[in-house]
Amino acid sequence: MPSFSWLLALYLAALTYLPSTAVNTSLQLEELRVQMRAMNISAYIIPATDAHLSEYIAPRDARLAFMTGFTGSATAVVTLNKAALWTDSRYWVQAERQMDCNWELEKDSISSVAEWLISEVPKGDEIGFDPFLFSLTQEDYNINLESSDRSLKSITENLVDKVWKERPSVPPDNLTRLPDRVRTWQEKVEHIRTQMGDNPYKPTGLLLSALDETALFNMRGNDIPYNPFFYSYTLLTMDEILFLHVERVTEELKVYLNASCEGALCVQLKGYDTILDHLKSYVTRPEVKVWIGTEYTNYALYEVIPPQDKLLTSSYSPVLTTKAVKDETEQQILRDAHVRDAVAVIQFLMWLEKTVPEGNETELTAAEYVDKCRSKQKDSRGPSFATISASGPNAALAHYPTKETSRRLTVDEMYLVDSGGQYDGTTDITRTVHWGKPTEMQKSQEAFTRVLMGNIEISRTIFPSGTRVNMEMLGRRALWEVGLNYGHGTGHGVGNYFGVHEPVGFQSNNIGFRAGMFTSIPGYYKENDFGIRIEDVAVVVPVQTKYGNNYLTFDTVSLVPYDRKLIDMSLLSSEQLHWLNKYYETIRSLVGPELDNQGLREEKDWMLRNTEPFAEIGSSASVSSSSLTLIALAVAML
Amino acid sequence: MPSFSWLLALYLAALTYLPSTAVNTSLQLEELRVQMRAMNISAYIIPATDAHLSEYIAPRDARLAFMTGFTGSATAVVTLNKAALWTDSRYWVQAERQMDCNWELEKDSISSVAEWLISEVPKGDEIGFDPFLFSLTQEDYNINLESSDRSLKSITENLVDKVWKERPSVPPDNLTRLPDRVRTWQEKVEHIRTQMGDNPYKPTGLLLSALDETALFNMRGNDIPYNPFFYSYTLLTMDEILFLHVERVTEELKVYLNASCEGALCVQLKGYDTILDHLKSYVTRPEVKVWIGTEYTNYALYEVIPPQDKLLTSSYSPVLTTKAVKDETEQQILRDAHVRDAVAVIQFLMWLEKTVPEGNETELTAAEYVDKCRSKQKDSRGPSFATISASGPNAALAHYPTKETSRRLTVDEMYLVDSGGQYDGTTDITRTVHWGKPTEMQKSQEAFTRVLMGNIEISRTIFPSGTRVNMEMLGRRALWEVGLNYGHGTGHGVGNYFGVHEPVGFQSNNIGFRAGMFTSIPGYYKENDFGIRIEDVAVVVPVQTKYGNNYLTFDTVSLVPYDRKLIDMSLLSSEQLHWLNKYYETIRSLVGPELDNQGLREEKDWMLRNTEPFAEIGSSASVSSSSLTLIALAVAML
Repeated sequence: MPSFSWLLALYLAALTYLPSTAVNTSLQLEELRVQMRAMNISAYIIPATDAHLSEYIAPRDARLAFMTGFTGSATAVVTLNKAALWTDSRYWVQAERQMDCNWELEKDSISSVAEWLISEVPKGDEIGFDPFLFSLTQEDYNINLESSDRSLKSITENLVDKVWKERPSVPPDNLTRLPDRVRTWQEKVEHIRTQMGDNPYKPTGLLLSALDETALFNMRGNDIPYNPFFYSYTLLTMDEILFLHVERVTEELKVYLNASCEGALCVQLKGYDTILDHLKSYVTRPEVKVWIGTEYTNYALYEVIPPQDKLLTSSYSPVLTTKAVKDETEQQILRDAHVRDAVAVIQFLMWLEKTVPEGNETELTAAEYVDKCRSKQKDSRGPSFATISASGPNAALAHYPTKETSRRLTVDEMYLVDSGGQYDGTTDITRTVHWGKPTEMQKSQEAFTRVLMGNIEISRTIFPSGTRVNMEMLGRRALWEVGLNYGHGTGHGVGNYFGVHEPVGFQSNNIGFRAGMFTSIPGYYKENDFGIRIEDVAVVVPVQTKYGNNYLTFDTVSLVPYDRKLIDMSLLSSEQLHWLNKYYETIRSLVGPELDNQGLREEKDWMLRNTEPFAEIGSSASVSSSSLTLIALAVAML
Repeated sequence: MPSFSWLLALYLAALTYLPSTAVNTSLQLEELRVQMRAMNISAYIIPATDAHLSEYIAPRDARLAFMTGFTGSATAVVTLNKAALWTDSRYWVQAERQMDCNWELEKDSISSVAEWLISEVPKGDEIGFDPFLFSLTQEDYNINLESSDRSLKSITENLVDKVWKERPSVPPDNLTRLPDRVRTWQEKVEHIRTQMGDNPYKPTGLLLSALDETALFNMRGNDIPYNPFFYSYTLLTMDEILFLHVERVTEELKVYLNASCEGALCVQLKGYDTILDHLKSYVTRPEVKVWIGTEYTNYALYEVIPPQDKLLTSSYSPVLTTKAVKDETEQQILRDAHVRDAVAVIQFLMWLEKTVPEGNETELTAAEYVDKCRSKQKDSRGPSFATISASGPNAALAHYPTKETSRRLTVDEMYLVDSGGQYDGTTDITRTVHWGKPTEMQKSQEAFTRVLMGNIEISRTIFPSGTRVNMEMLGRRALWEVGLNYGHGTGHGVGNYFGVHEPVGFQSNNIGFRAGMFTSIPGYYKENDFGIRIEDVAVVVPVQTKYGNNYLTFDTVSLVPYDRKLIDMSLLSSEQLHWLNKYYETIRSLVGPELDNQGLREEKDWMLRNTEPFAEIGSSASVSSSSLTLIALAVAML
């Protein structure tokens, strides 16, 4: 799935406050303004995240959706007489559909929020925010606003929660632990403590707050949809471990965590809501220094640590940077999960090819079918995010189909499916297909081919260890050549039975590539018409080069063929063609035996048909013609 | 020339304190430590810049070279018992040659300075620095050091100056003004004031301190070698202009500047040394707000502006971002200067080809000859930087030849020349040549070809307006494929009769490409063996694409052919080959007539021989072989 926050529309759509068109938000706005007046603030900022700065949030944290009606990723601001929402271009159509007239949709970049506040809030007034829902970049607002004579007011009690009478509760618990074949949590803790000891600034404690950091103890839960996370914080010091999640830990897990003692490898359980108390008490001790990752620590925690002598920051905590590199065992688990996932997706694509011409399938039934195919695979634990299943113009949006918006699938429109599964590994794949002849054949085939060229160029590139943002343009270059582009980032890290997004990869604030995961998602979208996206998970692997060491490349582990009829072979270079044929060989050798094992003969035939090697003669149209000239010459010479 | 600071070795080498090998620095270190003890500091940081954060500095600002003996770009730190210097890998060999045993060369990145200070300076102690020589990123040190219990002490009187008895004085002045065909300074001032008015934070004043910003009044000087700059500051408010450079402005220029009045378009002249007083007095006024560009404002000025309500920052001042975009007239001036520059470089390369086999030329005589060729061209005003003229192993360094280090040129070694001229425009070009058969033929030819491929890939790419860092890897990709790379950045902006480096381009803190200048300088260096670099200036131009608008590409304005014998044609793609042939056609059509005009027949023949079109059959070795298979097939079929 794409790299920014695509929120849980499917999930939220089921909640009662969300009709198919605009939501009436007059009542909640009125009540929020009562709260704002009581706090003497002139504006209140509402982000779409939780206290762990999670990308996917539980329904109880969907405050922005409750206030605005809009279920995508956004930032909202309410003043005493206006309400405005910022979201990126992929969501504009959806936002206009879902929001009522109380709300203005701001099509500027998110960085214009401060400017908007300056124009709407009188000088000297205060703007409220919940510090638990803001990252440290909230400081940017601060600087911009202060120099304009408006200031921010941190209010730890959330004002939306005060007016949200039917706020959902925490889901019932079901914590599990990972199987024994992965590294033990004690090994992981010791590895992190070594990094703390090696740090020249000598931190004494590490505060973990992202939910995939606090899961350091090899535990998984169900608090967040699609992600096996549970609410918790961890304060890991050189000789103690405080784990703030006492309420719902079973007796068996208490033993697993050594919860009865207080030594360096004993996990002391504390109440989730006591984090501020524990942190405040820790930083009053002399000679302590708390290390935080600035990308995932909320402002409420940050503001209690004295910055001069007790704070140490890096973009990511050592837990995140360590976790980004998967070991051999984890890589094998991920590869194996992708073979089974490919079986499910191939089953699904073959089914679509057969049933769509009959005219009874919709985006929604298709999304249900792909989930069903995955559920039959070994170790399946449900989808890793809400399936994007979109045909025709819907494919130009981040479209999560609902009963009301689901479009019938036909042989006359393109269809895009972006879906993934949780197994013992996590998968995420996007394919775009067409079952007939595209009406705007030339352009859509050209766009598809150029999107594929971008995907291949990234996948086959060789780069020095640690490279980051530099390579992102390879996903776009073939599109740029004809004046096409896409408005979202390229690629994101992928966890192992964990979050489907990890901060590894191409973005400038990401962790540079070492041996994590990544997906390339070049795309092209034509509003009101069609959308194309291709996405594969690849493992970063070392590569032998002629002269140098420490070079890496990608090994694609998603194993599903691309739609042949959408590929214009004349555009591909010989290197791209060669990559494609090798990839198809890999699909045959890895997925073929699994299809046999599962007794799926028809699917195997379909896979073989769709992975037939392409002829590798000539690298492009112009070269082919020179080759022809050569032949002509040769013939003439005889 | 490369994008980082390559300092004026030629210039400094002429100063008496610099012998050919290591410099004895015991005396100056002892005297500096006396000053340090008097100020009660345990360390003193010495950067290699001036109060305008200039890349090229005048001899009087070469404090780092005076203290360390090292004439490259670096940061030095002196404690009471140690002295250490940080520089990047290109300079390690040179630094080891020039520095004596008082100095440790630190091969870590510059970001390790703070760590080093923590390990060397006792807790609670202070570290001194001259705030005029630091940018605002000095704050980074601050944060890192404060959290470790060491703090920075701002000392406005420079301690090195106190011990530098023979510090050179400011060179005699010779201010000039640009010809009338460029935009008037009044137009420029009004354009900047419009941007100030449009800024939502409502700045009332703009503080200019980079020397190419304060030259806003279309004036040029001679204070800095190779750059037509002069020391000055400007405080531009909505209704006043203070220009801090009274001492050396002629009566004629006073009239040109309207220096006799105090209105909005009158330039009030003040003393250079009064900048802090004027700024302090301005910020005490109510309701003022000073806009600064953080990249070129020194810490001494920054620290007197109250950050809460009187400071507005952006990375670059609006003068720099405006200046980055050249208008039609400026672009034409630049293009024309490059035609004349190409004549000079072609003359030089032909001369080398003839004279090197005779065995009498050296790196130094070659550098002198290229400068001489340029000096004969119309509007020549000297080199735009010290010529890098390097053969054999020297070419793996940033090598500015001196009498002591100059190597004899032979037909057995590669030769690299990176040079440029100031005319009414500014030029900068690098070519690498070989007059015989390279000993390590296979590798050096492969490296050269891949460097060229990188240069071509950048030059021919099409990209959306505003793109920045994204494209840099195109210069490296062909090298990465075989495990080669280079340790410096790619490209930099170029001024027009101005600085040879402007912050436009590929680096993450640069101004995105709109219609400025750029040079691509992919390279490859093999220590103790050879060095390859190719560098051209190109103008960013709009390009028509099939589907989109607002796309750009590069138009190369440097017009000198590459060494044919170093190109392995089998590695080039058909697109690269096509680009090369079109470029050579352009050289013929633009430089040919100018060679005719100047009556340079032999040079014209040389140019024609070296721009013969390459055969455009087959795109790469692998394709050629498939073409051959095809021929074989065709033949077999007959």
